[in-house]
Amino acid sequence: MRLTTFSYLGQEQVGLVTQDQSGVVPLKRLLGVDAPGTMIELIEQWSDLGPRLQTTSVFPGTGLSLADVGLLAPIPHPRRNIICLGRNYRDHVAEAAALGGQTSGIPTAPVYFSKMIDRVRGSTESVPIHKGVTDMLDYEAELAVIIGKAGHDIDPGSVPEYVFGYSILNDITARDLQKKHEQWFKGKSLDGGCAMGPVIVTADEVAYPPALGIRCTVNGELRQESVTSELIFGITEIVSDFSKGLTLLPSDVISTGTPAGVGMGFRPFRWLKAGDVVDCSIERIGTLTNRIE
Amino acid sequence: MRLTTFSYLGQEQVGLVTQDQSGVVPLKRLLGVDAPGTMIELIEQWSDLGPRLQTTSVFPGTGLSLADVGLLAPIPHPRRNIICLGRNYRDHVAEAAALGGQTSGIPTAPVYFSKMIDRVRGSTESVPIHKGVTDMLDYEAELAVIIGKAGHDIDPGSVPEYVFGYSILNDITARDLQKKHEQWFKGKSLDGGCAMGPVIVTADEVAYPPALGIRCTVNGELRQESVTSELIFGITEIVSDFSKGLTLLPSDVISTGTPAGVGMGFRPFRWLKAGDVVDCSIERIGTLTNRIE
Repeated sequence: MRLTTFSYLGQEQVGLVTQDQSGVVPLKRLLGVDAPGTMIELIEQWSDLGPRLQTTSVFPGTGLSLADVGLLAPIPHPRRNIICLGRNYRDHVAEAAALGGQTSGIPTAPVYFSKMIDRVRGSTESVPIHKGVTDMLDYEAELAVIIGKAGHDIDPGSVPEYVFGYSILNDITARDLQKKHEQWFKGKSLDGGCAMGPVIVTADEVAYPPALGIRCTVNGELRQESVTSELIFGITEIVSDFSKGLTLLPSDVISTGTPAGVGMGFRPFRWLKAGDVVDCSIERIGTLTNRIE
Repeated sequence: MRLTTFSYLGQEQVGLVTQDQSGVVPLKRLLGVDAPGTMIELIEQWSDLGPRLQTTSVFPGTGLSLADVGLLAPIPHPRRNIICLGRNYRDHVAEAAALGGQTSGIPTAPVYFSKMIDRVRGSTESVPIHKGVTDMLDYEAELAVIIGKAGHDIDPGSVPEYVFGYSILNDITARDLQKKHEQWFKGKSLDGGCAMGPVIVTADEVAYPPALGIRCTVNGELRQESVTSELIFGITEIVSDFSKGLTLLPSDVISTGTPAGVGMGFRPFRWLKAGDVVDCSIERIGTLTNRIE
């Protein structure tokens, strides 16, 4: 299933995207009064609602036209910061050393950091350039894993049971702030600096572990291209390692890191500028499009 | 005012602590049906409810005895990760270099990181030792600032208007994980690794900027002792700098860093062990007591 959050007549709702991806069917049309109002509630109630939705047919032409609704991020207001990985594709490790202060070796353990959220931006929403705050705004196309149920010290063999689904995340980064403050947190957390979407694809639709093509273009020019099987630390290792002594919750988002080709990897650097359109695409999920403003 | 969250007959409530600090008066006894059920809601509605509570008299002997209620953290479930500062007391900067991988110089910009929360532990609640996950659990007594209203790009001169109050935070840290994963996030985020309390003291009760004695003892032995005026980056600088391009929300918690004397600063190292009792005290706020189990 392809799930998303959208705004229609001023109301935020959760819905199923039709198979031809032209429309969205509001959850309350499928589930009636039981329908959860947010994606977080839907994920929490998935063991009950998932099977009910599986038996629901969503035909092309049903529901609202995607052109008539405002597509939001699938989880616009996550209940905790986004969990992110740094330096998790081999080809990105070298370019990431460019700003200095970092080793260029392959990490021997996953590098986790967090991204604080005002509101996650959805596909087609704009992302602020933050003039006067940063001069080095950069893009990072990433595969995001959405956690389906609570757990800690998760056994590697059990990890797939905890994966609710997948989305695309643009981990927008102010490189100057990332370096200036030593820890990456502030440079990763500017308002609007996280875009996700256009949908969450449920885990049953993707063979585990996902080996999906991932690309990023800026104004149509290819910048990043890899396969999610190239992750240094894969999803099994990330979820089992990160959950040691730490409880993951339903709807937590883990963004798995970005391949080579970010603006920092070019000479001269190629920072984002106002008017740029960034497309992050992952096979079987779709394309997340954001304009920098 | 001294505000706290407590559990009584299985229900979580917000209350005012009496002046002699022996009792707590449930907010719903003072405000009736209007009373917010959580500290986050109280802070959000403070411009209306604060003045009403100011005119309410809370006499010694009124309310529930503190001995009869379960004291929780003032904000047990923050809506975002705790915002923390590292290396923000001069005397702690040198000892913090002990584990290697860090410069020993005074930071030229605030070092921000975040702490993910399962549930913030309150005073008298236990903190897990996480045997098998970490062998280097450490304490850090800190002054926590609670934000009162939303704002970004906050002018230094306006910062005091955004400070709702103060509390004590024990930024419990797994030093081995802090180092192993390069970024500090995972080592700072183990379940139960954040304790706060016993109360929030509203900003009107403390001269700004706060110059309060801060101490930490382990099993009664003095380990940390300083004054909050010794911060390298003070509250004005932290709030105005961190909010550049980033919206702070009511109830956000900023923990301002710890002085010298953590377990990593001793030779041999003095990590926490099961049964240890850690007391973090700050003048005018009180003492946060947690047993390691």
